[in-house]
Amino acid sequence: MNEFELIARLTQSLPTNETVVTGVGDDCAVLDLGVPDKLILFKTDAVVEGIHFTRETPPEKIGRKALARCLSDIAAMAGTPTAALVTIALPKDYDPELVAKIYSGLNALAEQYHVAVVGGETTTNPERICISIALLGMVPRGKQVLRSGAKTGDAIFVTGELGGSLAGRHLDFEPRIAEARWLAEHFPLHAMLDLSDGLAGDLRHLLKAGKVGAEILKSALPVSRAAKLQARSGASDSNHKPAALAALTDGEDFELLFTVASRDAVKLLDAWKKKFPELKLSCIGKIVPGEGILLRDKSGSHKLGAHGYEHFQKG
Amino acid sequence: MNEFELIARLTQSLPTNETVVTGVGDDCAVLDLGVPDKLILFKTDAVVEGIHFTRETPPEKIGRKALARCLSDIAAMAGTPTAALVTIALPKDYDPELVAKIYSGLNALAEQYHVAVVGGETTTNPERICISIALLGMVPRGKQVLRSGAKTGDAIFVTGELGGSLAGRHLDFEPRIAEARWLAEHFPLHAMLDLSDGLAGDLRHLLKAGKVGAEILKSALPVSRAAKLQARSGASDSNHKPAALAALTDGEDFELLFTVASRDAVKLLDAWKKKFPELKLSCIGKIVPGEGILLRDKSGSHKLGAHGYEHFQKG
Repeated sequence: MNEFELIARLTQSLPTNETVVTGVGDDCAVLDLGVPDKLILFKTDAVVEGIHFTRETPPEKIGRKALARCLSDIAAMAGTPTAALVTIALPKDYDPELVAKIYSGLNALAEQYHVAVVGGETTTNPERICISIALLGMVPRGKQVLRSGAKTGDAIFVTGELGGSLAGRHLDFEPRIAEARWLAEHFPLHAMLDLSDGLAGDLRHLLKAGKVGAEILKSALPVSRAAKLQARSGASDSNHKPAALAALTDGEDFELLFTVASRDAVKLLDAWKKKFPELKLSCIGKIVPGEGILLRDKSGSHKLGAHGYEHFQKG
Repeated sequence: MNEFELIARLTQSLPTNETVVTGVGDDCAVLDLGVPDKLILFKTDAVVEGIHFTRETPPEKIGRKALARCLSDIAAMAGTPTAALVTIALPKDYDPELVAKIYSGLNALAEQYHVAVVGGETTTNPERICISIALLGMVPRGKQVLRSGAKTGDAIFVTGELGGSLAGRHLDFEPRIAEARWLAEHFPLHAMLDLSDGLAGDLRHLLKAGKVGAEILKSALPVSRAAKLQARSGASDSNHKPAALAALTDGEDFELLFTVASRDAVKLLDAWKKKFPELKLSCIGKIVPGEGILLRDKSGSHKLGAHGYEHFQKG
């Protein structure tokens, strides 16, 4: 049983109550706690030493990343973050300076996004540092954007550039909160999520939730400079990963992936360029009937397998 | 720098915003998110294998305990729990059955308290299982009970019996949610918290928050049967812990500690006996000017040190 199978089993029949608008399975839970014009967003996310960061990561960036990942999930619902709790599990011999620096990076990002840090706890995890963030946010009632809702014919958009995040960007990315709010205020978004597992994997979540498929144009993928550099430097390496494959499968991009009706696509691109001239927005393909991802390039359309990416293999 | 010194340093200047009613330092954070008649309670709490449970603990009880601890914090504010997120960090070789059982225990308790489980995540922690719960609750606006607020002359009450929790009760305790709500609805509670670190330690938090002291009557301490049995069985042991000392210092009681004006004390005890005949409520002493804890027994009043409990040492 892998992680996804386990989650599927665990989430089959969870306790619920009358406050739940959207439970497990989206970027955040959505709750109706009785705020007249707003719904509550609720999210947790953890980073673990040796997996999401190392002993060598500057501690301020560890704290920043821990919070930024959660902020990105609030962005994915088109919400605004409000308040965070910080749980930090530490080896017994921890260096208090290191912990202070982790908080300092986290607090700086919280200030930037007007998020209150209202507590949390320190506990013991003997072998490694683990930080779990719980975050509350709010979204105008009815304006939350779910993963489901993509319709056949929709244009698929992605912000920024993809791939190669582990070269550095995973520690420095900006959660797309302002962008997502602007999008949701100005265009009827059909579906949205933030890219954490890699475009192909996350797009599959969106497609599954909407019971649709997608055709992606390989040449339209916004490949990051980091992914291109890595592809070039690794050209003679047996682990060589073409840049377009990196853009499709590298994780931790934390960009927005969303769909709108095709009639809104050009208008949206134009308005975006005026509003966010510094941040690339790419239409990478369209929603089609069926399931899974078709990748179109000069040689035609190829089904993208869930695991193997044969089309990218050398030789 | 110990844990408390580190927390003091980290919480000196946390980011805040206009939603924060009570930030770090109480059992829960209290937020005003615009619900007309209610405030939001927000809490996280983690349990770690080898510290809060072992490989031998029945997994259903691990899940139950993880949630129950958080519920107890909502009770300590006189609130009602609403929705939980579950973060579970697992070694790579985890047994899916074990995880399913952890959730099963947690879900059963959630159902019992009408708490929705709205998501969370699984992540990797190679050496041990770690479960972090984030919990939302609600409390009628103005009816939240803080740790601060104890006044000289107040009667100090504690629910249930104390000490020896690790013999089993720490896995089975009932969070005192109904009791706390009833108390807050019927009496002006001055201060309240739930006992997690042991009566003496937690009472010190309450005293510090209220800038007062306490005089505790040793003979009034409600000593649990488990603490008495342990004291008896360990009589010849060099680690012998008298039962009253166990009641004062053993952790994980998860009972309520609260204060009311002395004029309300008798009325409260009478009403309690009618409402909750099965659950002991003890008046264990009173709030006095000054700071720290005085323990009164047949031989007089003794200052209870923060660390040593000399008065309990065998002679």
